[in-house]
Amino acid sequence: MTQLLLFGAGKSAISLIDYFLKNAAQYQWHLTIADTNKQEVEQKLKTYLHLPLTIVEFSLSNDELKNDLIQQSDFVISMLPAILHGSILKACMQHKKHLATASYVSNEMKSFDNEAKQNQLILLNECGLDPGIDHASAMQIIDQLRNQGAEIHTFKSYCGGLVAPESTLDNPWQYKFSWNPKNVVLAGQSTAQYLNNNELTFIPYNRLFTQIEQITVDSIGIFDGYANRDSMNYKEPYHLNKIKTLLRGTLRPKGYCKAWDIFIKLGLTDDTSIIYNTDKLTYTDLIKAFLPKSGLNVKEYFCTYFASSLTPEMLHMFEYLELFSNKRITLKQGTPAALLQHLLEEKWKLQPGDKDMIVMQHQFGYSLNGVQKQINSSLVIKGDNEIHTAMAKTVGLPLAITIKNFITKQFQLYGVQIPTQQAIYKPLLTELSTHNINFIETHT
Amino acid sequence: MTQLLLFGAGKSAISLIDYFLKNAAQYQWHLTIADTNKQEVEQKLKTYLHLPLTIVEFSLSNDELKNDLIQQSDFVISMLPAILHGSILKACMQHKKHLATASYVSNEMKSFDNEAKQNQLILLNECGLDPGIDHASAMQIIDQLRNQGAEIHTFKSYCGGLVAPESTLDNPWQYKFSWNPKNVVLAGQSTAQYLNNNELTFIPYNRLFTQIEQITVDSIGIFDGYANRDSMNYKEPYHLNKIKTLLRGTLRPKGYCKAWDIFIKLGLTDDTSIIYNTDKLTYTDLIKAFLPKSGLNVKEYFCTYFASSLTPEMLHMFEYLELFSNKRITLKQGTPAALLQHLLEEKWKLQPGDKDMIVMQHQFGYSLNGVQKQINSSLVIKGDNEIHTAMAKTVGLPLAITIKNFITKQFQLYGVQIPTQQAIYKPLLTELSTHNINFIETHT
Repeated sequence: MTQLLLFGAGKSAISLIDYFLKNAAQYQWHLTIADTNKQEVEQKLKTYLHLPLTIVEFSLSNDELKNDLIQQSDFVISMLPAILHGSILKACMQHKKHLATASYVSNEMKSFDNEAKQNQLILLNECGLDPGIDHASAMQIIDQLRNQGAEIHTFKSYCGGLVAPESTLDNPWQYKFSWNPKNVVLAGQSTAQYLNNNELTFIPYNRLFTQIEQITVDSIGIFDGYANRDSMNYKEPYHLNKIKTLLRGTLRPKGYCKAWDIFIKLGLTDDTSIIYNTDKLTYTDLIKAFLPKSGLNVKEYFCTYFASSLTPEMLHMFEYLELFSNKRITLKQGTPAALLQHLLEEKWKLQPGDKDMIVMQHQFGYSLNGVQKQINSSLVIKGDNEIHTAMAKTVGLPLAITIKNFITKQFQLYGVQIPTQQAIYKPLLTELSTHNINFIETHT
Repeated sequence: MTQLLLFGAGKSAISLIDYFLKNAAQYQWHLTIADTNKQEVEQKLKTYLHLPLTIVEFSLSNDELKNDLIQQSDFVISMLPAILHGSILKACMQHKKHLATASYVSNEMKSFDNEAKQNQLILLNECGLDPGIDHASAMQIIDQLRNQGAEIHTFKSYCGGLVAPESTLDNPWQYKFSWNPKNVVLAGQSTAQYLNNNELTFIPYNRLFTQIEQITVDSIGIFDGYANRDSMNYKEPYHLNKIKTLLRGTLRPKGYCKAWDIFIKLGLTDDTSIIYNTDKLTYTDLIKAFLPKSGLNVKEYFCTYFASSLTPEMLHMFEYLELFSNKRITLKQGTPAALLQHLLEEKWKLQPGDKDMIVMQHQFGYSLNGVQKQINSSLVIKGDNEIHTAMAKTVGLPLAITIKNFITKQFQLYGVQIPTQQAIYKPLLTELSTHNINFIETHT
């Protein structure tokens, strides 16, 4: 019996849990879930309770329980927020256990690389959607092109956690929250860095959502793509040493970015300064307070102030959020970003039956035998419903499948690993395909 | 013999140390200075070594020494960075010792208010320049007006750590660093909040340095004033319950703010995203990377891109910083803000003989017997030289004087105190006056 131990059974963990339990009999697995809310997890998993599953009430501050659980396990998975992996990591190293997360490799994780290798332990990371499926699918094409003797000069890769068009018909933003709302509201608050035809290019936050590209994904439509953090990070792991254009971007519905930029310009995405007594204010008061003083009414002045960029469609987006309807703020205090998030969580809530949607597109420009060529490789995945989301599937399945492949010795790699190696990505992509997670390639 | 114990003998501590040692004989004081660099402090204080002074090499991690020193003292002063006061505070409470800092009252400090009162201990805070002299001088006028039966409807207060005009003749920014450069570069990165004619008003960072007021200080000239953080914080401690306009601002030389806004717009004040391999770049490359792509040369494009706000004077300011001269960046990596700071520390360094300058102005609008009136109260202090700065004087003297007034029982207040009470500010302002720290009032 292989003991799997999962810390955290939040929204994105459901597909991972599904996978483990559906395959438990075949592989002789037992799954223990440690979560801060045992009752809620039991409720969520009530149809699974006859399976080899134990649910434990757990708090990270309980060192003794943490150590006991890890000591009794064979493989540990952390689906906790990335910032909490550290204490799990240290306990895993102490008790010589494998660890997997869907998060970016932290410096702390890196520092245990040697020790893990010496003990034949894997520290598997970046094995969800983005990072995760992006690595696997991009590296498969990069390796294929390289084997053909191609020289890749351009790599652009976009991903977005969106909502299926049929679930946003009445919402002019065409967007709802299928993942952490705070991350959506605070997205992009640092300098984006990328390489554009061999020129280092930076975009500050105050311009990020205006400097967008239109990304066309066949079968589903056109999206806004904005540059995401430091694209240069992908040069080394992807071995793109001769790359001239290297960009990682985030997808939003067409028209979203220019409207979102109005929130940035207004100041509504600041998360550092707390405003007090906000339950005495309306969202209209808030907008008014953020605009320079004027005799006009708020909506008139908003339209005048943003006249150079505001279209009737955009105004309709803001009206949809009841910004000019004297809607009361119900939080007692909060940063501008928290107040905005509170409103959006109401307006952009996934409703029963709504389907989220993951869209990813890689664009490769390369020369082969002197001929310039292009591959676009696109993935579109819709969720089944508001629980079994595309986000949960695409984050949880790659992690679960890769853990299974490691345990069943389909690959033997130790230390810090991400799914950029063929031994990991090949069986992963093959199996994802059986779950209808397939990229469509167009060659030109 | 009263034992005074000072943690931290940095730049702003010199006037405080001066005051303690010059008055040591009269008041039977002995001063112990605990600093991470004993040798440097000895060098700086070499003319004082015959006085009742002990200098101890000290690191905050040395709990035993910290406790020994505090136990043997009567009054503890922390001039360490505010973030380090906590461990000193706890030891002071444990050993029942008075504590003074020039920093803002932290929540931790507040939490010891009752315990300190019960033990007749003072926890003196916000007793430097800003906060410090601002509290004392504003409250003196507020209390006077209130005693006359006046109703104060407007309070605006500005302060700036600047440089004397005669020390910036060749510098078109008219500015050099007389205090922490990082704080200058990152200034204003949160929503400014104030009250404008009974209307709550917020200014986001992306507009802060454009939405300025011209502040005239007789005898010295005109300054830019921009709104500083949350002005509403001053309503309660100053008892300004009926105030209609309440604004705290920061002063910069005339023309500085609109030029600084160009750095913000460019993205050069972001401190969250690290750029690597910057020693292979010039500052001109950096500017180019932050501008949208263009065929023009960097300076031409910079002028075109910022054409709507750039004046010839502003262009000269940027040229003075060698932004268009292919000056190499010498840091290996850094955030945009760190790279900018590195350049400014070279260009804006106080030179031998340079004098810094503190400028403060309070503006009170009030009605008395039905008549609208105004008081402007202004302070201008120049430093003696680049060591005995106006900043060191105006931070150190209020703290030293108030500690002396407490020890000599000129006032008896315990728990958390700031100089808004008459018992503290009255003797403080009287004695500051003997050090030529005087406000000039104009009544209209």
